[in-house]
Amino acid sequence: MNITEQIQHKINNKTKPLGSLGILEQIALQIGEIQNTTSPELKNPTILVFAADHGLSEAGVSPFPKEVTYQMVLNFLGNGAAINVFSKQNDINLKVVDAGVDADFKNNPNLIHAKIANGTKNILEKSAMTIDECNKAIKTGGDLVKQQHENGCNIIGFGEMGIGNTSSASLLMSKITNINIEDCVGNGTGHNPEGLQRKKEILKQAIDKHQTDDNAINILSTFGGYEIAMMTGAFLKATELEMIILVDGFIVTSALLIAHKINPSVLKNCIFTHTSNEQGHTKMLNHLNAKPILSLDLRLGEGTGAAIAYPIVKSAVNFLNQMASFEDAGVSNKE
Amino acid sequence: MNITEQIQHKINNKTKPLGSLGILEQIALQIGEIQNTTSPELKNPTILVFAADHGLSEAGVSPFPKEVTYQMVLNFLGNGAAINVFSKQNDINLKVVDAGVDADFKNNPNLIHAKIANGTKNILEKSAMTIDECNKAIKTGGDLVKQQHENGCNIIGFGEMGIGNTSSASLLMSKITNINIEDCVGNGTGHNPEGLQRKKEILKQAIDKHQTDDNAINILSTFGGYEIAMMTGAFLKATELEMIILVDGFIVTSALLIAHKINPSVLKNCIFTHTSNEQGHTKMLNHLNAKPILSLDLRLGEGTGAAIAYPIVKSAVNFLNQMASFEDAGVSNKE
Repeated sequence: MNITEQIQHKINNKTKPLGSLGILEQIALQIGEIQNTTSPELKNPTILVFAADHGLSEAGVSPFPKEVTYQMVLNFLGNGAAINVFSKQNDINLKVVDAGVDADFKNNPNLIHAKIANGTKNILEKSAMTIDECNKAIKTGGDLVKQQHENGCNIIGFGEMGIGNTSSASLLMSKITNINIEDCVGNGTGHNPEGLQRKKEILKQAIDKHQTDDNAINILSTFGGYEIAMMTGAFLKATELEMIILVDGFIVTSALLIAHKINPSVLKNCIFTHTSNEQGHTKMLNHLNAKPILSLDLRLGEGTGAAIAYPIVKSAVNFLNQMASFEDAGVSNKE
Repeated sequence: MNITEQIQHKINNKTKPLGSLGILEQIALQIGEIQNTTSPELKNPTILVFAADHGLSEAGVSPFPKEVTYQMVLNFLGNGAAINVFSKQNDINLKVVDAGVDADFKNNPNLIHAKIANGTKNILEKSAMTIDECNKAIKTGGDLVKQQHENGCNIIGFGEMGIGNTSSASLLMSKITNINIEDCVGNGTGHNPEGLQRKKEILKQAIDKHQTDDNAINILSTFGGYEIAMMTGAFLKATELEMIILVDGFIVTSALLIAHKINPSVLKNCIFTHTSNEQGHTKMLNHLNAKPILSLDLRLGEGTGAAIAYPIVKSAVNFLNQMASFEDAGVSNKE
């Protein structure tokens, strides 16, 4: 038997009706395959939250002022944000990365200084970043994942904070999936109908301004953000290192779209944790043929969906390792 | 402000976009309302697994032999079953109740002896139990919940084990919801198409044999099982004691249908944890207007859906208690 068959055999002999743990069985199989073992382990689960500012926020694409990116990073460092609460509950290590916030931070043990620049350029005027900056961000994201891997982490999730970053994500999505930009735009952190209309018009202008080719790095450098570029590199490196990747919502998945265009095999390491209430997310997931674990109408970002879903991933590994088989338990299988 | 407004106000002032925690916000509100506080607590979470045999199993409604009920109780006591794994992972107390297994058990600290009889009667011949036995089971279920409440438990889930009990649940469902029995029958623990057809025919015979009136206790005593009757009493008592109730899958929900017919206000204490892959469950949930947390294609029973979903319920309470407000964190709210 190959490893897939061995894991499936082990699952099928657990004291339960065949297939009765549904999606948990699929997750157990996937994790066993990634780790090439019938007894997988989840070690040092970690979430990296990448924060950065967006030049486009000047144009009024978000109902929140740009300063909130900086303020929320301080909130993360003060353990007051949603991602802090859920990471603590589920024993997940949490690190915050300054990928490109337009403000300076003091040193803090939970903050990683990796600023590429003080926010991206306003894409109504020019590309968000240069190709060099984009490549530097991708490399940095990869290096940070490598560091976590060296610390013994084999399961990692990514989160993000950046006022304006649903706009970037929508633009990347439109370019990668060829879906009209209007259909890629959602409420973000909460618009009224007029705000949403304004956001759509601004993004239409942005997409019309830049005639990019089909190259992933060109698309990313034109429309992306530093947090998104770092997550792209993080996805690629985590795949290379055979880590399990917990995929969060809309913005994280936009980074995955880019990573997937560069290396399609990234998907085999991805566990999709939730379907966001941000309307474009479902279309992204369809593009990737992904069926997430949770559908709780979350649209918060920060990696919160990944953190909330983590215990379910753990349940998948635990049943595989801990449940008795029919033989062990002396339970009769079907007649 | 009344308590609902106070809790909603607290939720709305957390450092996150309004409504962005979706269903978690609804759960937090519901739990706050049940406990009448803006700072709810989850104490001594407990799952009671009720086990019993069914006379109808003689007729071949399940692909597993009847002895599996007994064997699986031993598996629970030996910590080898799925519910053991998930309860341990999520720090949930687990107790197994012999409600009416057709075998005797030695004493065990995790087993509660509460046998009403050695399995129900075969309902192709007579009522599953007498009205007295039914009332005794309901009272016992209530007493067991009261005991847990006295031990400091304020959140409880119910699970079940009983070869043949999806048949009982289908019959109860048909009687309560007025849906044709054929549409209430599913695969149970795993039938081939012929087995499923046989099951449908047997249940049609059973429903034709008994012309019950609309009285919940009559329906329950005619078609129920001891585990189902105990869970009915357990739902009613937990509601009376203002406990939070984690509702599992198809069979547990059939007990809730009966409890709900006796006291409709039971629903305000119920958190629906998952939608089972057993096809009738969705129809039961529609009847109760319920939208569960998870949809993972589970169909194992034992309370496993409740155990797996518990960390998400905890996340709801934790964000309400632990997240910073905009004011606390000095984060700007919308412009």
